[in-house]
Amino acid sequence: MAVYTEVTDEALRAFLADYALGELLAFRGIAEGVENSNYALKTAAGDFILTLYEKRVDPRELPWFLALMEHLAARGIGCPLPVKATDGLALRSLAGRPAAICTFLPGLWPRRVRPEHCAPLGGALARLHLAGADFAEMRPNGLGPEAWGPLLERCRPGGDAVQPGLVAELDAALAGILAAWPATDTLPLGQIHADLFPDNVFFLDGADGRPCVSGLIDFYFACTDLLAYDIAVCLNAWCFEADGSYNVTRAHALLAAYQRLRPLSAAERAALPVLCRGAAMRFLLTRLYDWTATPAGALVTRKDPLEYLRKLRFFARAEGPASLGL
Amino acid sequence: MAVYTEVTDEALRAFLADYALGELLAFRGIAEGVENSNYALKTAAGDFILTLYEKRVDPRELPWFLALMEHLAARGIGCPLPVKATDGLALRSLAGRPAAICTFLPGLWPRRVRPEHCAPLGGALARLHLAGADFAEMRPNGLGPEAWGPLLERCRPGGDAVQPGLVAELDAALAGILAAWPATDTLPLGQIHADLFPDNVFFLDGADGRPCVSGLIDFYFACTDLLAYDIAVCLNAWCFEADGSYNVTRAHALLAAYQRLRPLSAAERAALPVLCRGAAMRFLLTRLYDWTATPAGALVTRKDPLEYLRKLRFFARAEGPASLGL
Repeated sequence: MAVYTEVTDEALRAFLADYALGELLAFRGIAEGVENSNYALKTAAGDFILTLYEKRVDPRELPWFLALMEHLAARGIGCPLPVKATDGLALRSLAGRPAAICTFLPGLWPRRVRPEHCAPLGGALARLHLAGADFAEMRPNGLGPEAWGPLLERCRPGGDAVQPGLVAELDAALAGILAAWPATDTLPLGQIHADLFPDNVFFLDGADGRPCVSGLIDFYFACTDLLAYDIAVCLNAWCFEADGSYNVTRAHALLAAYQRLRPLSAAERAALPVLCRGAAMRFLLTRLYDWTATPAGALVTRKDPLEYLRKLRFFARAEGPASLGL
Repeated sequence: MAVYTEVTDEALRAFLADYALGELLAFRGIAEGVENSNYALKTAAGDFILTLYEKRVDPRELPWFLALMEHLAARGIGCPLPVKATDGLALRSLAGRPAAICTFLPGLWPRRVRPEHCAPLGGALARLHLAGADFAEMRPNGLGPEAWGPLLERCRPGGDAVQPGLVAELDAALAGILAAWPATDTLPLGQIHADLFPDNVFFLDGADGRPCVSGLIDFYFACTDLLAYDIAVCLNAWCFEADGSYNVTRAHALLAAYQRLRPLSAAERAALPVLCRGAAMRFLLTRLYDWTATPAGALVTRKDPLEYLRKLRFFARAEGPASLGL
């Protein structure tokens, strides 16, 4: 469910009066997405997405996200382009929330990942990293390695109720990850998406019938961090089967396509296993926190944190970059 | 949340291969609706809604609903038109569910009802009733007066936990309603929508800036019943303020616009108060049943049954049709 804030007709019309988008034709809530309220908006000018930014997003960071999307779209990345009102501003206010209209992107996100998705994904990720290279303003990763210890502390009281011994296992795993984590001056840094899960990547069929990436969405975890960490997030999000096994065919397709556009340095290749462990830890901890902090009756789908414990264990056992598909 | 069934890309493509809708361009879950899974579907041929029928809908009744929509659309009613596949059939199967594609209707449902919505609503309801007059096949109202006693029985164990004394009050109110209920041969019978709440009615601005009805959706409670009962449902759904007071201006606008196209008979006018009590009872009982039967942790928004207790009490106190806006 991704409509947390209802927008009255009057408020919507007043809001749209500041844009040059023509007659309002339709306005429907979108089920996808968990952080913000998203509406499909149709006007005489076409299809758009209206987003109301909810509590998890810091309003002071919204200009950075919107500027990054505008920068990337201007360089040919298929990502939502913030639409400016007649006064030139894209970030506005609606129903008491910060709000923005972005262009609608065609395409479908893959409900079931196939190996054919992973090469175009790898190429799109590399293009994203290259296009972000001249976006100068930095945004620290609020869910990077420095955040994991404090997050684990907040899960300590309830963690073992999810699985006995979980907290001790995470203490040890986190210590190992942080000890092996590469310094930010040893690997290439840049603008990363940091949350490129299948529901954030749209595909359309190409002329040859194979899927092509038509768009990347939901940049509200984007930040300035190790580029290879973004790959590690994708390996976590795209390369495991439903039964928990790692699909090295998908991983190889993703990595090879990425490297055709941006070859990884020796240091990046060597760091990939620990980056994958870190990415597994990041999603494990945020899911675990949501799991322990969400009241049982809340209208929120809680995602299983233990899925990422299994991924963390896989990456901890992996014997070097080659076993990950490099 | 109105996506209960996830559809894989492969299943969707196989499903669409039976239609002549051109290239698949987008497929997004829609947040609105509570009974079925609804997706916004965009193809080279335009915008459509794909509905997967979930448990509450009896698959054997779907042909009736789809035939009614086709009948009404052919008579100029703005309602979803079932799209036929190349074999001529609109009702198909997808992801283990009955499924159908319908045309997309432009317009917005009013998040906040204003008196200006009620005259166009009354006109649209009358046109719906007139257009259904030559749709011969009948479908009994599964949530009509015969269903209310059994429904109240199922709420008996848990009802008083919602409000002390509630079950006894409903026993007395239901006996009064059933004793005064008009026989079906005394009032005009026809095809009614039976669930015409604001989220099922789309509006667009007319040339004069006033709202016009652009579409009626969600015909899956439609049935053959007293036409005036459909008006009673609308008076319940559209004519109360958030504070529980009855807005007679809205009701008068609705009823006057309806009667310009289909004047009510003396018997219908006399029956309107008890029909309103019955409609309040119907929504009270289904909400009460959902309230008492839904586990506290379920991912379903439970609607407050007591809102309809207040409406029931209002209609029980109402002194004749004039006090309702007739």
